[in-house]
Amino acid sequence: MSQKIAILDSSLRDGAQAEGISFSVEDKLELLELLDGHGVDYVEAGNPGSNPKDLEFFARAKAIRLKHTRLAAFGSTRRRDTSVEQDGGARSLLLADTPVVVIFGKSWDFHVTDILRASLDENLAMIRETLAFFKARDKEVIFDAEHFFDGCKNNPDYAVKTLRAALDGGADALVLCDTNGGAFPSEVGAIVACVAGLFDVPLGIHAHNDCGMAVANSVAAVENGARHVQGTYIGFGERCGNANLSTIIANLGVKRDYECLPREQYRNIAHVARHVAAISNVALGEREPFVGSSAFAHKGGMHIDGVNKAARSFEHIDPERVGGQRRFLMSEVSGRRVILDKIWEFDPSVTKDDPVTDRVMKRLKEMEHAGYQFEGAESSFELIVRKQLGKYRSFFDLEHFRIIGEQPAKGEYSSSAIIKIKVDGEDEITAAEGDGPVHALDRALRKALEIFYPELANVHLTDYKVRVINGSDATAAKVRVLLQSTDGDAVWTTVGVSTDIIEASWLALVDSIEYKLLKLEEARRKQAAFD
Amino acid sequence: MSQKIAILDSSLRDGAQAEGISFSVEDKLELLELLDGHGVDYVEAGNPGSNPKDLEFFARAKAIRLKHTRLAAFGSTRRRDTSVEQDGGARSLLLADTPVVVIFGKSWDFHVTDILRASLDENLAMIRETLAFFKARDKEVIFDAEHFFDGCKNNPDYAVKTLRAALDGGADALVLCDTNGGAFPSEVGAIVACVAGLFDVPLGIHAHNDCGMAVANSVAAVENGARHVQGTYIGFGERCGNANLSTIIANLGVKRDYECLPREQYRNIAHVARHVAAISNVALGEREPFVGSSAFAHKGGMHIDGVNKAARSFEHIDPERVGGQRRFLMSEVSGRRVILDKIWEFDPSVTKDDPVTDRVMKRLKEMEHAGYQFEGAESSFELIVRKQLGKYRSFFDLEHFRIIGEQPAKGEYSSSAIIKIKVDGEDEITAAEGDGPVHALDRALRKALEIFYPELANVHLTDYKVRVINGSDATAAKVRVLLQSTDGDAVWTTVGVSTDIIEASWLALVDSIEYKLLKLEEARRKQAAFD
Repeated sequence: MSQKIAILDSSLRDGAQAEGISFSVEDKLELLELLDGHGVDYVEAGNPGSNPKDLEFFARAKAIRLKHTRLAAFGSTRRRDTSVEQDGGARSLLLADTPVVVIFGKSWDFHVTDILRASLDENLAMIRETLAFFKARDKEVIFDAEHFFDGCKNNPDYAVKTLRAALDGGADALVLCDTNGGAFPSEVGAIVACVAGLFDVPLGIHAHNDCGMAVANSVAAVENGARHVQGTYIGFGERCGNANLSTIIANLGVKRDYECLPREQYRNIAHVARHVAAISNVALGEREPFVGSSAFAHKGGMHIDGVNKAARSFEHIDPERVGGQRRFLMSEVSGRRVILDKIWEFDPSVTKDDPVTDRVMKRLKEMEHAGYQFEGAESSFELIVRKQLGKYRSFFDLEHFRIIGEQPAKGEYSSSAIIKIKVDGEDEITAAEGDGPVHALDRALRKALEIFYPELANVHLTDYKVRVINGSDATAAKVRVLLQSTDGDAVWTTVGVSTDIIEASWLALVDSIEYKLLKLEEARRKQAAFD
Repeated sequence: MSQKIAILDSSLRDGAQAEGISFSVEDKLELLELLDGHGVDYVEAGNPGSNPKDLEFFARAKAIRLKHTRLAAFGSTRRRDTSVEQDGGARSLLLADTPVVVIFGKSWDFHVTDILRASLDENLAMIRETLAFFKARDKEVIFDAEHFFDGCKNNPDYAVKTLRAALDGGADALVLCDTNGGAFPSEVGAIVACVAGLFDVPLGIHAHNDCGMAVANSVAAVENGARHVQGTYIGFGERCGNANLSTIIANLGVKRDYECLPREQYRNIAHVARHVAAISNVALGEREPFVGSSAFAHKGGMHIDGVNKAARSFEHIDPERVGGQRRFLMSEVSGRRVILDKIWEFDPSVTKDDPVTDRVMKRLKEMEHAGYQFEGAESSFELIVRKQLGKYRSFFDLEHFRIIGEQPAKGEYSSSAIIKIKVDGEDEITAAEGDGPVHALDRALRKALEIFYPELANVHLTDYKVRVINGSDATAAKVRVLLQSTDGDAVWTTVGVSTDIIEASWLALVDSIEYKLLKLEEARRKQAAFD
């Protein structure tokens, strides 16, 4: 029987203390529902004592019927010179009206004397009384022993006394925090093993990533008896971040036999990670274990060859178990095999030694040299292959375009574009305004083309990314633009590179539209052959 | 006496197998010199057998007089059906002409039989003979035992036999590789402890980050006897990356008493990490332990308060020991203290309850709501504070500007800008061309302003970053532009936000120039008071 590990996600509380992270109330509600659907046991969603805005969230969260998650509010032990009843923080916590409260208290004697400026005994009373206050009001109470590992190294007797005080107050779980993120897995494992025998309630771990070992510290704690893990789903948090729960869940729940989520949820880990990133408006790191876009991406020729023979030769787990996807990257080190695979999609008769393979390789290298990258822009890559194979035709010719951006003496800045194109000998000139020059150009181009290709009406851009390739030349540097487009069904990505952001965007726009028109033509041809 | 740990950086070899990484020969030479100056023991710089372009690098690297680093080339054991003398890979390795070669060989029986398709004995001969070949040619030879931990779990006797074969061939070090990145620190520690007693040459560790524990695995290996660590300086590499050496060196060399670099080099760790990122053209993650811009950034009010009382209350080490910098972030959760600190730089008489503090807070929230972020754009923030304090004057008025981007029927795309400004009642109109619209606008603005402020001649932009704030609206989304400027001495960063990339760039440009002119005026006033 697998052992249950309780998971507490603090993206909305500790995570909100990360640089660059700021949640609206709507963001918080969306994240709560996402994690509930995923089967996360606890969501710690705010600190109403220090951020009054959180109370609005808790009021609105009550309207949500949670299927799995228990909602938690976070706060500190009472201040040293007052009763819990009179403590503003405790009162705010009650107003949040959550079934669970997480109370943090000091367990490092130095922090008690030098930061709180309380006596060691007073701190124990603060812990005991605060927990008892919430237990008397029927809350599930989790005690976060702040700086427990630092405390244990400095004064182990006192650190353990703070846990005892929490238990006396009625704690339902005791969580050992590496608040400063300075502990090593060997230390965490040894300390958790010591403490695990002392108490009857579940022990937990709350790790920070300042030494790059928050995941390993959490895993070491579980291997030594912890049964509750706190972190943030994709790892953001104060300074270097909190322990990354998506990694921990994959390690413990998928690679080992612990129960962290309902079994059917493991294959949603990558999807949930991307969704959390989207809500939090942060880029999910490409190299993030299990969930990053590169996590199962192979580039070295020997690795690709090995995975084609047996996946486990270069993959520690089957990507599908966490909802990840295997990818073979196209680049000069990936070798001919990947390029040949792509060519075979259009023309299975091409052999490894066919001169067209060399031409594609050569063109690829030239474009990479100019700053292109086709990883993540497979549609532009497909167009290049088609051009070399002669399986490409262009759908329009550009006569000229002009972008005008104007900041008048009085009034708003505006962008407009004028474009003239030719389709089958017929000219069309038109203009459009937009929020920004690329938007104006995109609109003008579609307006002109829809006359000839009305199917383009349902195509629109869904993402626009700009990367400065060489930062040292500043505004004169090259930029790489990635455009993601959709017709409501398929999604495709194209790339353009230039010293000018407008020209780079134009190149990616043209690829996006020609790709769609090629696919339409292909579909029509197949249909005709079938009829 | 501290124990020496040999460090081998493979950014140029295993790192080059990362998605998005591609080095020119010049990049490689620059990185080699950087790591040599930093005191890294070995730089593994290419795989001449699989990438012939690497030979050009090795030829040019011979002209560099290295002070500390020993240069290594990487290659495999000979193929199964040939002698080492006849093996193309071995011949390429000899051509690289490096003092050190790193030879990888299979230690997982499954890989030998199913991927190499050799017999187990043949593989042992391949290892022994290949190493002996290079030892006979006076090379220092490091053996990378590929998939050692997977091999050890499957067939420990055979895995150890491969090490013995390498030793018989003359290996100077035996490196245990977690090639697929699937091992846990508890496993790595136990296996290294077992193997450590068996051989007289140093044991090494080569970890990958597929479980998010490559740093912890490397640390566990050293705690159990390894004395040689391989990785890449900022962690990029195939799939989820290699073990991050900057983190490992800080953990072992700064937080523990191992000798990983010459002692005086530890305080360059953050600088070297940024430099490696710049050469490799990747963004250094903000949350990277020790070296990221957020590594010692405090946002929560209680944390800021604690660090002000005693740094160690929320910092696991003194940031200066690794060349990092403590920062207090400005945001709604950071509280009034940070804002007050900034206000006091210009007006120490302002109190906590002064209405100006509220005004600054209010303006800050409005701008954050509009998409601004002042973390990393402190100069724009300073201008806002000055505006609220009345310690600001504008140095010019914009009459109007116009940007024109033109793609003619024939010929190149071009960008130009026309601008009209007024300084002290005097008009100036001018125009400039540029590589891209922002470059043209920047040139035109400076050209007009230099007539009135010749000191601007030595100001130029050093970095230009574009971030799409809300990807879901694509080209109509807001963009945040960060500009970094320098006058050759000071460096400052400004920010602009708009739906239009040109307008956002313009706002950041204006801030950049006004900031410089304000600083000049201030310097003159101080000089005048002194004279």
